[in-house]
Amino acid sequence: MKFATIRTPEGNRAVRKDGDVLVDLGYSDLGELMADTSLAAATPTGPTWSLEGADFAPTVPSPAKVVCVGHNYRNHILEMKRDLPTYPTLFTKFASTLIGPYDDIVKPDETDALDWEVELTVVVGDRVRRATEAQATAAIAGFTIMNDISMRDWQFRTIEWTQGKIWDSSTPVGPWLVTPDELPGGVRPAVAVRTTVDEQVMQNDDTGTLLFDPVYLVQYVSTLVELRPGDLIATGTPAGVGHAREPKNYLRGGETVTTEIENIGRCINRIVKE
Amino acid sequence: MKFATIRTPEGNRAVRKDGDVLVDLGYSDLGELMADTSLAAATPTGPTWSLEGADFAPTVPSPAKVVCVGHNYRNHILEMKRDLPTYPTLFTKFASTLIGPYDDIVKPDETDALDWEVELTVVVGDRVRRATEAQATAAIAGFTIMNDISMRDWQFRTIEWTQGKIWDSSTPVGPWLVTPDELPGGVRPAVAVRTTVDEQVMQNDDTGTLLFDPVYLVQYVSTLVELRPGDLIATGTPAGVGHAREPKNYLRGGETVTTEIENIGRCINRIVKE
Repeated sequence: MKFATIRTPEGNRAVRKDGDVLVDLGYSDLGELMADTSLAAATPTGPTWSLEGADFAPTVPSPAKVVCVGHNYRNHILEMKRDLPTYPTLFTKFASTLIGPYDDIVKPDETDALDWEVELTVVVGDRVRRATEAQATAAIAGFTIMNDISMRDWQFRTIEWTQGKIWDSSTPVGPWLVTPDELPGGVRPAVAVRTTVDEQVMQNDDTGTLLFDPVYLVQYVSTLVELRPGDLIATGTPAGVGHAREPKNYLRGGETVTTEIENIGRCINRIVKE
Repeated sequence: MKFATIRTPEGNRAVRKDGDVLVDLGYSDLGELMADTSLAAATPTGPTWSLEGADFAPTVPSPAKVVCVGHNYRNHILEMKRDLPTYPTLFTKFASTLIGPYDDIVKPDETDALDWEVELTVVVGDRVRRATEAQATAAIAGFTIMNDISMRDWQFRTIEWTQGKIWDSSTPVGPWLVTPDELPGGVRPAVAVRTTVDEQVMQNDDTGTLLFDPVYLVQYVSTLVELRPGDLIATGTPAGVGHAREPKNYLRGGETVTTEIENIGRCINRIVKE
């Protein structure tokens, strides 16, 4: 099943995709819904919204936690001649960092190094702390896409990446939350992941090559914190970011960046100048 | 003036200290209050609570953003023979990381390197983005204390510190929000800052030696994000953390850690084993 949070004249609404229509599930967004019940138990309230022209919000607009993972694609790590890491590298974003999957990305005047990172993203559906493998598996409500937009000039000002990662309204998330049963590999999806800038393919890999898979990441992060419904874990990005290219290639006003994951969908975002 | 958030049988309450009593200001916590009005405009609602035996919550229990600053004490940086940094180093915590100023710190079984960091902490009172110096000054509602508890073994597993900094219910914040007019130096306080473990003084410096002062930090962080009422910015810690000692000295069950800032107060926290 596919779920989303859409913006309507009545505010944000949690919906389920039923063919060409979006069925209202009686909650203001998927985070609210999952805090109260499960996606499987959610029942349509009657209203439907047209899929065509729907205005998608971030899959979860106000997650309490957005955890992102660094170096995690095996092929990319090996190609860079790095040792495989023993532990996942973690950093965070704020809820205010997120935008919808088709929203414009406004390039701040203060950066000249706006970069893309397509990431398979876990949407947490249950409360879990120190999750066993079975608990972590059950806590994965589904997957969405994040374009972990990074201001590289700010990211590398200091040894901590945070200041390049948290800019307001910079990071597309969406359009769908897709349940694991719809994905080859289930809670450990093996699907194509791709970034295109205008017509040029920039990133192209497979989530099956993740070093730390989604179940392991839920277990790992839940060692530190109780994960709650609506929390997001972005699982890292493959080779091909603009910063690693020769010459470096950053996003410019007028370009369109598309981040796409097979069986989940795509975020399509135009870069506009401030 | 001094403000706090206390836990009562009726839930959290925002209060002002009037002598030996705490006057209820009609809001569930200081974050709620400042989202609606200013501290100066807040009016007592009638009820009072006894200061003696009051149960303090984190100054702001649910900030949307907790931003922490790395290396920032000039004396400590020079003593370590490091160059003075050009930019502040930033990382974040979650709201779920925070506990009250007198709560027990539960040492997780997974760490053997629980460490202290006393930090002067800005409490934001206004919405500001790309603040001028005057706007940043006006946006500082006051200051509180954070003990930026760090699991050093996890902090240094990878190049990003986050996983040593975000453990649930690890980080004391409080007890008071003290307005700048009560502090020597005002929005750039010059006050003694100290950590004691049981009877031993571990950190002892002066906030006047901060390389990036609170006004500058509000300006800097607000370049990236809109700061909102209740957001916290912890301004970094001076020399004397357990991890930098020879031999290393970490917190153990049964010890009490006191983090104290002149004219603001102290957090007193017992370490208990899980």
